[in-house]
Amino acid sequence: MRIWARRLLTASPSDCAALQTVLDQGEIEAAQVIAVIGKTEGNGGRNDFSRELAVRAYADCLAEAAGSSREAIEEQVVLSFSGGTEGVVSPHVLVLARLDEGTPQPGSKRLAVAVGHTRDFAPHEVGRVAMVQETASTVRRLMQELAVAAPADVHLVQIKGAIPAVSAAEQHAAAAAGQPLRCDMVHSRAASALGVAVATGEVASDEITDERIARDYTLFSSVASCSSKPGLVRSEIVLFANVAHYGGDLVMAHGVMQDIIDAEAVRAVLTQLGFDASRQLRPQETARLVGIFAKADADPRGSVRSRRHTMWSDDDIADTRHARAVVSTVLATLTGETAVYVSTRAEHHGPLGGGPVAILARMP
Amino acid sequence: MRIWARRLLTASPSDCAALQTVLDQGEIEAAQVIAVIGKTEGNGGRNDFSRELAVRAYADCLAEAAGSSREAIEEQVVLSFSGGTEGVVSPHVLVLARLDEGTPQPGSKRLAVAVGHTRDFAPHEVGRVAMVQETASTVRRLMQELAVAAPADVHLVQIKGAIPAVSAAEQHAAAAAGQPLRCDMVHSRAASALGVAVATGEVASDEITDERIARDYTLFSSVASCSSKPGLVRSEIVLFANVAHYGGDLVMAHGVMQDIIDAEAVRAVLTQLGFDASRQLRPQETARLVGIFAKADADPRGSVRSRRHTMWSDDDIADTRHARAVVSTVLATLTGETAVYVSTRAEHHGPLGGGPVAILARMP
Amino acid sequence: MRIWARRLLTASPSDCAALQTVLDQGEIEAAQVIAVIGKTEGNGGRNDFSRELAVRAYADCLAEAAGSSREAIEEQVVLSFSGGTEGVVSPHVLVLARLDEGTPQPGSKRLAVAVGHTRDFAPHEVGRVAMVQETASTVRRLMQELAVAAPADVHLVQIKGAIPAVSAAEQHAAAAAGQPLRCDMVHSRAASALGVAVATGEVASDEITDERIARDYTLFSSVASCSSKPGLVRSEIVLFANVAHYGGDLVMAHGVMQDIIDAEAVRAVLTQLGFDASRQLRPQETARLVGIFAKADADPRGSVRSRRHTMWSDDDIADTRHARAVVSTVLATLTGETAVYVSTRAEHHGPLGGGPVAILARMP
Amino acid sequence: MRIWARRLLTASPSDCAALQTVLDQGEIEAAQVIAVIGKTEGNGGRNDFSRELAVRAYADCLAEAAGSSREAIEEQVVLSFSGGTEGVVSPHVLVLARLDEGTPQPGSKRLAVAVGHTRDFAPHEVGRVAMVQETASTVRRLMQELAVAAPADVHLVQIKGAIPAVSAAEQHAAAAAGQPLRCDMVHSRAASALGVAVATGEVASDEITDERIARDYTLFSSVASCSSKPGLVRSEIVLFANVAHYGGDLVMAHGVMQDIIDAEAVRAVLTQLGFDASRQLRPQETARLVGIFAKADADPRGSVRSRRHTMWSDDDIADTRHARAVVSTVLATLTGETAVYVSTRAEHHGPLGGGPVAILARMP
Repeated sequence: MRIWARRLLTASPSDCAALQTVLDQGEIEAAQVIAVIGKTEGNGGRNDFSRELAVRAYADCLAEAAGSSREAIEEQVVLSFSGGTEGVVSPHVLVLARLDEGTPQPGSKRLAVAVGHTRDFAPHEVGRVAMVQETASTVRRLMQELAVAAPADVHLVQIKGAIPAVSAAEQHAAAAAGQPLRCDMVHSRAASALGVAVATGEVASDEITDERIARDYTLFSSVASCSSKPGLVRSEIVLFANVAHYGGDLVMAHGVMQDIIDAEAVRAVLTQLGFDASRQLRPQETARLVGIFAKADADPRGSVRSRRHTMWSDDDIADTRHARAVVSTVLATLTGETAVYVSTRAEHHGPLGGGPVAILARMP
Repeated sequence: MRIWARRLLTASPSDCAALQTVLDQGEIEAAQVIAVIGKTEGNGGRNDFSRELAVRAYADCLAEAAGSSREAIEEQVVLSFSGGTEGVVSPHVLVLARLDEGTPQPGSKRLAVAVGHTRDFAPHEVGRVAMVQETASTVRRLMQELAVAAPADVHLVQIKGAIPAVSAAEQHAAAAAGQPLRCDMVHSRAASALGVAVATGEVASDEITDERIARDYTLFSSVASCSSKPGLVRSEIVLFANVAHYGGDLVMAHGVMQDIIDAEAVRAVLTQLGFDASRQLRPQETARLVGIFAKADADPRGSVRSRRHTMWSDDDIADTRHARAVVSTVLATLTGETAVYVSTRAEHHGPLGGGPVAILARMP
Repeated sequence: MRIWARRLLTASPSDCAALQTVLDQGEIEAAQVIAVIGKTEGNGGRNDFSRELAVRAYADCLAEAAGSSREAIEEQVVLSFSGGTEGVVSPHVLVLARLDEGTPQPGSKRLAVAVGHTRDFAPHEVGRVAMVQETASTVRRLMQELAVAAPADVHLVQIKGAIPAVSAAEQHAAAAAGQPLRCDMVHSRAASALGVAVATGEVASDEITDERIARDYTLFSSVASCSSKPGLVRSEIVLFANVAHYGGDLVMAHGVMQDIIDAEAVRAVLTQLGFDASRQLRPQETARLVGIFAKADADPRGSVRSRRHTMWSDDDIADTRHARAVVSTVLATLTGETAVYVSTRAEHHGPLGGGPVAILARMP
Repeated sequence: MRIWARRLLTASPSDCAALQTVLDQGEIEAAQVIAVIGKTEGNGGRNDFSRELAVRAYADCLAEAAGSSREAIEEQVVLSFSGGTEGVVSPHVLVLARLDEGTPQPGSKRLAVAVGHTRDFAPHEVGRVAMVQETASTVRRLMQELAVAAPADVHLVQIKGAIPAVSAAEQHAAAAAGQPLRCDMVHSRAASALGVAVATGEVASDEITDERIARDYTLFSSVASCSSKPGLVRSEIVLFANVAHYGGDLVMAHGVMQDIIDAEAVRAVLTQLGFDASRQLRPQETARLVGIFAKADADPRGSVRSRRHTMWSDDDIADTRHARAVVSTVLATLTGETAVYVSTRAEHHGPLGGGPVAILARMP
């Protein structure tokens, strides 16, 4: 087995031309595609319809190639789009396929990807211990499915967290019962990230209490990348790990930025992957980077390294758009690559003001 | 003689508390101050009133300390504020004073700063050869004033370019006469930058024609940093150069970014100043950086290194604010410093899509 | 014959639930639908993907109901979405169907709608006399098709203007030949609007010269509502007129706002439709309004009634979004209705700073 | 006694030229000025520095005319600027002076204005019953000072509410004691507005509990217009009322908009002032309007008259800027005047989604 991965540049959120070419040329088959993860040029906020447009377009494209329906594709393939290509970021998609070929190389682990989902969540579970534990258990199951040798081999766990619909009556009832619902984006992301941290052993299961979720940010995962989606009843999970029994030339590594300009953390990841990170990568090196992922926020304490920033106090611009521009530029400065995947709202993703970074590279 | 320079962090555009402390403690006298150059947290656009507020506050502060009036200070001291502290940028001012002390060190050039202005411009001269030549001549005079040994010792020429007021009647008359006025921000900046390029010998005087101004961007300066101001009848110029006959511990160096993520250009400047730029500077090194200046734009061709960017096509955000976030983050990634001075609209400042970068450091 | 029209509120750009219900309940058949005209909650700018999403969703919805394909629907039905629901504007669609039923009422004209398109345009024709004349000729053909008795019976001509793709080489060649291309949004809209003005006799055919297009704004249409779309090779036209031989209860009227707060023009239209406009319409009156259309701009001269406005000088907000908020509120103030269709960029649509307004009402 | 009032248009936040002319021409003396209330072209948010710039400029202007200092003027004169001139709003100031002249007209009340302030507030009082009661008591004192005959004669109470500085330690201590501080903008405005409501008898003193403040919006004032300012230790209050013993030609009236497009409420105010509001006022009528004030918000429930609006869900634009554009356009539609004073964040100002409107007119 091996993972086939390709970064494809897009001309707009609905541009599937590059994927169509790949399918037309028979490089992969539509049925082998397991995930399309992309950055679209929206605002990344509530009214960012570029994501829905992209999902619709990619599902239609794969459905036509597979002789299937859009609904079926949306059920089978992870179509995950993050809005916001601020600064130098270039809109793109990363297409992942699983091929039934490829010879494991002795002594050398290669990328494997597993996809799964949790059980359905009741509204009162979201953002609480129950969600953390179920998420952790699902992540562990995916690790077993891939026969991951050690938690350190897990480099990225991307989750779209559940936020089941809830009525105002249910909300009031829960509040009246002294257990106000946490069925919102913040708490869904927070519990998802802590679920990853528990699965990889970064946080002990018994450290998790309802009180610490979305509050005690000393607890965090170094490999989570969680978003959440209103209306979703179960969380969807994509696990990236290096394993011995997969072939191919793809290898992943990760690190944790301690703050939003922690270049040293990124340099360390590049070094792990065998690059000379004492300078910006050269074009032929940059070309080996297939995917670059990071999650971070404008530091909510209002300063970075004791210097005030204005990402939260400028009412004309969203802090999320600023923060993505910054993190993506840190990555581009070191790698020379601008088609990077940076996402914000990073509760329990790395330390407060910092966040996880993961890089997928093709081995020479 | 020596230049005293200090970067002071600000809590708001009108916050002069740090300067007040410096004056109160007698470190410098108000009369010694020659320039206050700052970044304020506005939008950097036409309705950015943070600049006017800062000018007013700093002029009032210096006037009170000097027993002078606001108007007199505005006449004597360069008060130059650039709006826009996007991304991680921290609002700050750089205060420059000239002290009648300091021993030149043999074989070692130190920062000197000269301030001057062109003659008044007629509206029809702005953005044309006349403005380029007068600007060049003034820059050369300032170089002589400082006894600059060679053009390579000039590292930054900051200009606020003239845009004399012009009536609609004058505009129509000029257009009718076949010489439409160029009395606008774009052409004033463009001619100012080319004036610097002529003065430092980067562009030959006879290469300049009206046609090439704001059009042929293969002509550019590597040390200019020009803005322009409606209502100004003459251009104000601040020249930064290293000279043998000044003392103190300040040294400047510069380079040119070939594109907006040209980290190698910045690394080269740091290396010239004696830093190990194979990694982000460490805190004690960062502390030696007194001023970091860059000028650049979101590439108007819509792509950086063959990858599309959306800084010009996203109607919800200004390209200038995106571009400043990017360049400042490139600088912060390498230096660890977020109180940097990045300005946009960079006609004839470095190659298209790139721009000059200059760093002022304290020698150990 | 009669026109069936219904305003349907939407929960998001892709929300077709209300249309689905109408189709499910057999009120109309998908094949009878001739146009869906909507306002989506995007920014109305270049990166407004809410429009493409809505087109895709509505085409899919109608295709499924008609047992047809998305492509076929897009060919047969006008799917026209305008982004930008600023201020109190409520996102909605107006669905128009033509039913083979309805008895004309003697002495009483009723709404008829015709849909057509121009011939393909060559790039050099766009924004020039050729486009004006072909547009005029097509509008006249549609008027004949509906047997419109007099130009005064035409109340709205909505056009999506052609902007055929053009290579840089073609652009340079045209410029070199002294006939620079005008193949852009501004000139396509301008020529389309003047085409309507010529068709309805507001402007004489021989008054049109290339020089006056997008320049002499004393020439204008009182019933045009033109946008333009890059890539479109022919202009798509929807004509709304009252005619004697149609039945139903729908009647339209129009007027021209002289400036952006010209309430009297709107009141006059309401009065024509039989409403008491000396106060805001009451709920049962508001309920009779099926469609409210206006086109206007923030006055480019920077003031309204001798008072400065800041819609063009505030760099944090788009003038188009401000202008739509204003015009839609004028309409809501008088009608009590917030689901209105206001579009901006109104070259030759009413006088400079003003624009046409048309209202479609159900007769009691 | 009589009040002198004049609306002056401004070219920028610091433009005092019109006031300077008034002072130069001896129309009023600087010492007679009691308030300058203006709209500046900022974003109305936290980083709106146009307000501070205007305060500084107007204080300097009055200080020079009065031979006083900026600090003294800021102590004596209410300088109150509200940022945000969205849509058609024209930046302007309303200058109010009290002249020791003017003959009361029998049977006819005229505008009187009183200025005062509460005692200093402790942080734990802000946003709680104590602040409501002290505000009410101060408003009542100002009513007595003006000998207001009945609460119905009070038409506008403008308050800048206190928000004393508070340390993190104090915040934690208060939270730990079960009385978390409410020392923020929301609660300061809310308590100020309820204070006005108690003073005018709209809400009974014993109806006020801590629980209902910023929560039960069925309690509200019809004449309050409250903002708040971090750092202010006492609330500053300006009371506008019609009284029998003042002369002059100024009369005020007010009403309450039930929702953001409640034109009928505005029409009623105009009718009270003797205008024919069955149409937009004509220029000579508009000229008699000296001040137009309103306070409102984008309805937090997300809809207006059962139609969804997007002012809260569009992440690219502030709800406050949308809401101000809407309310100001409602006012301009009816009055023909665009230099109106509309402010947002209207807790307990009129019913939820609506708000008070007050108009100051010159009697013929």
